[in-house]
Amino acid sequence: MRKLFLLMFCWPILTQAQINQDSITIKKMSDEIMTNGKAYDLLRQLTKQIGGRLAGSPQQQNAAIWGQRNMAAFSPDKVYMQPCKTPNWQRGGKDFASVVSVNGKAMNRPLAALALGNSLGSKGLIEAELLAVADFDELEKRKAEVKGKIVYYHSMFDPNIIQTFGAYGKAGVYRSTGASRAAKYGAVGVMLHSLSTAPDNAPHTGGMKYDEDYPKIPAVALGPNDAKELYANAKKGTIRVQMQTYGYFLPDADENNVVAEIKGSTFPNEIITIGGHLDSWDVNEGAHDDGAGIVQTMEILRTMKALNYQPKRTIRFVLFANEENGMRGGNKYAELAKQNNEQHVFALESDAGGFTPRAIGISATSPEQFKKMQQWASLLKPYGTEITAGGGGADIGPLKNVNATIVLAGLVPDSQRYFDLHHAKTDVFENVNKRELLLGAVNMAAIIYLVDQYGVPK
Amino acid sequence: MRKLFLLMFCWPILTQAQINQDSITIKKMSDEIMTNGKAYDLLRQLTKQIGGRLAGSPQQQNAAIWGQRNMAAFSPDKVYMQPCKTPNWQRGGKDFASVVSVNGKAMNRPLAALALGNSLGSKGLIEAELLAVADFDELEKRKAEVKGKIVYYHSMFDPNIIQTFGAYGKAGVYRSTGASRAAKYGAVGVMLHSLSTAPDNAPHTGGMKYDEDYPKIPAVALGPNDAKELYANAKKGTIRVQMQTYGYFLPDADENNVVAEIKGSTFPNEIITIGGHLDSWDVNEGAHDDGAGIVQTMEILRTMKALNYQPKRTIRFVLFANEENGMRGGNKYAELAKQNNEQHVFALESDAGGFTPRAIGISATSPEQFKKMQQWASLLKPYGTEITAGGGGADIGPLKNVNATIVLAGLVPDSQRYFDLHHAKTDVFENVNKRELLLGAVNMAAIIYLVDQYGVPK
Repeated sequence: MRKLFLLMFCWPILTQAQINQDSITIKKMSDEIMTNGKAYDLLRQLTKQIGGRLAGSPQQQNAAIWGQRNMAAFSPDKVYMQPCKTPNWQRGGKDFASVVSVNGKAMNRPLAALALGNSLGSKGLIEAELLAVADFDELEKRKAEVKGKIVYYHSMFDPNIIQTFGAYGKAGVYRSTGASRAAKYGAVGVMLHSLSTAPDNAPHTGGMKYDEDYPKIPAVALGPNDAKELYANAKKGTIRVQMQTYGYFLPDADENNVVAEIKGSTFPNEIITIGGHLDSWDVNEGAHDDGAGIVQTMEILRTMKALNYQPKRTIRFVLFANEENGMRGGNKYAELAKQNNEQHVFALESDAGGFTPRAIGISATSPEQFKKMQQWASLLKPYGTEITAGGGGADIGPLKNVNATIVLAGLVPDSQRYFDLHHAKTDVFENVNKRELLLGAVNMAAIIYLVDQYGVPK
Repeated sequence: MRKLFLLMFCWPILTQAQINQDSITIKKMSDEIMTNGKAYDLLRQLTKQIGGRLAGSPQQQNAAIWGQRNMAAFSPDKVYMQPCKTPNWQRGGKDFASVVSVNGKAMNRPLAALALGNSLGSKGLIEAELLAVADFDELEKRKAEVKGKIVYYHSMFDPNIIQTFGAYGKAGVYRSTGASRAAKYGAVGVMLHSLSTAPDNAPHTGGMKYDEDYPKIPAVALGPNDAKELYANAKKGTIRVQMQTYGYFLPDADENNVVAEIKGSTFPNEIITIGGHLDSWDVNEGAHDDGAGIVQTMEILRTMKALNYQPKRTIRFVLFANEENGMRGGNKYAELAKQNNEQHVFALESDAGGFTPRAIGISATSPEQFKKMQQWASLLKPYGTEITAGGGGADIGPLKNVNATIVLAGLVPDSQRYFDLHHAKTDVFENVNKRELLLGAVNMAAIIYLVDQYGVPK
């Protein structure tokens, strides 16, 4: 009982009148977004007029200018660029892979392939025998066989993990570290099953990183259908494969975080950040990843201004420059926050697709704090979400180093479709649903409004 | 307190061991479905090899034979056809509508249009002035202006209703009764805004019904974009429009419900029904409506047999013959159930699309009964659903007349996308996601398993 009383003193128990008022304000925001929302049209512009926006590309620079212009049109108190150096990886050509022979029988079977982001070119066509392994355990067991071969990892998603981000977490390590782990034992190239759940053959790119201790061998992801066939054939005999990639780095590029701000009326020094990342991979339109988060962020700015909402705390709407292959945007934002002694209390990111929202995931600093914030759940329920523990985003993560007690949060959309499209050419505008996208913005606006009104509990 | 004790005596409080066992069995079913599920491949066959399946069409007859053959291959105790007469409405031709003039200025602007199901042909091209109304209230106010005109209803979905089935309920009455309500005041034809949430121009058909007291005038649904433009123009001036439709009825057709059954080992007389409907509209592949419900039903049969699950109660897997324009399949199933004195205790339908499941909706016979069934919620939560009050399906509804205490339930998938596709040419296989479809089957299997194990509480 004592604990309950403490809770009551520390954190305002909302009166019914307050709850009603909050519910009315959130409904107004929802109606404004669902009826007049511009997020879908903005996404069409970003994807169709600008297109894929890999850090360092002219498209990425255009996207920042577009973001600045469009946010300025919604009349926040200020909009500005935060210059930021980003990696400048170039794919450099059309990646190629094929099966040359099976059990000595010649064939010429091209494989749908995409070089992994940050991987270096093969310096010409390379050909070698394939060593196909289920996982790193098998690689370790067969390390004596690796030398001179191209290693294939059957890095499939576990279909039985219902929340696909869990499966991505498990499989993702093959993309990020698979090349160097094979190079350690003398492999000359790496292929892997795309990190995808789709029953199709689109290869999925994505970031990788070399271990400086080993040769930097080329690495490609294969389309799911080709990958499964290759793995099945590898069980039956000896396969020779070819691959050619062209990746290289130009000097770091000049990009920008784009920041819009509405100054708080009561606690102007307390900063709430909301954002997504502008960059995408080069092979698609970056519609779900992360055009969705970008236009949802802009939508909330638009809505607050359209409804003449004057926040108590300062709200920042941030289009981060670079997440996919460097996290430089988020790092720059946090670096400047530290430099300027800013007081960041809450940050929310949308970077898990523009699908129907299921939850606002919150990384609180204590179970008690989480429980207090979870009292807002009934206000979100009509809009399809709950408040769950654990959440954030790559771009806002570095803010934890600025303020250890910041509360980080993430929009949690339904995850069943996401890895069908993620980093593949299929991540295009046509695969985003207007209502789902807008409903995400509604739920983001609702949690931002509540944090603005009540702050984060201690 | 007394009430609580009663509750405890009437309904077993599951022991931890039981909950663990149930959780293991449900996980086994989930793994079987998510790894080896055939629902997606079956849906490809149904949509691509057979196609649209309006009651009375050869495709619908082929679909029943296909359903019988495929369910038989999963080795239930029996599979049989239940012959059933269905309406046999024919579209009869390519529906046509256009704007002829605006404020006397001639133009020839075709409108994307589809005749409503069951509506009769226009007997040639008709041309008339348009009377555009927001709703029935406006129609009543302007009833003196209706005579000789073509009435347009701006039957848009309310975008602010987050659960789209709520918006469908409100707008649907214009499709079902709009023609006769306009004919009552002398209208010669009816156009309406498709019952759609999509930002596109695909017209959506769907069932309507004439009031026998008034002339049976032709009725078409317009594509959303054309409808909005027409309504905006109608505010500004006088519009003349043309329309031509060809609908007619052939004598009732011979179709079949397809029923597979696994006999219960302990309570064979208690029947649990699970199903969807085989028929669809003629203009699409009926992928979400209701190919999804059909293949999910078949998937659960497959899974139970694959896992050697021997149910305590008798489980029926039913592919209903006709829902869209007559409900004859469900009526026939209930009629035979009554004739045969069958004891139906629970029925579950999937007929709201193959999207990510959000809930199992249950129409219990009392709040107490609902609360008891809701105790199963923690077993469904890992698979993304909750247990909510209210649920069922058109095809299983008539079972209520066989047993007033039957519990009806429905799979509740996410509803944001459904009315973008529903009854439009866009309801095709490509718009169904494999994991979402399979996850629906997982949740259906889970609730069927629990009802089979514990029955429905009193």
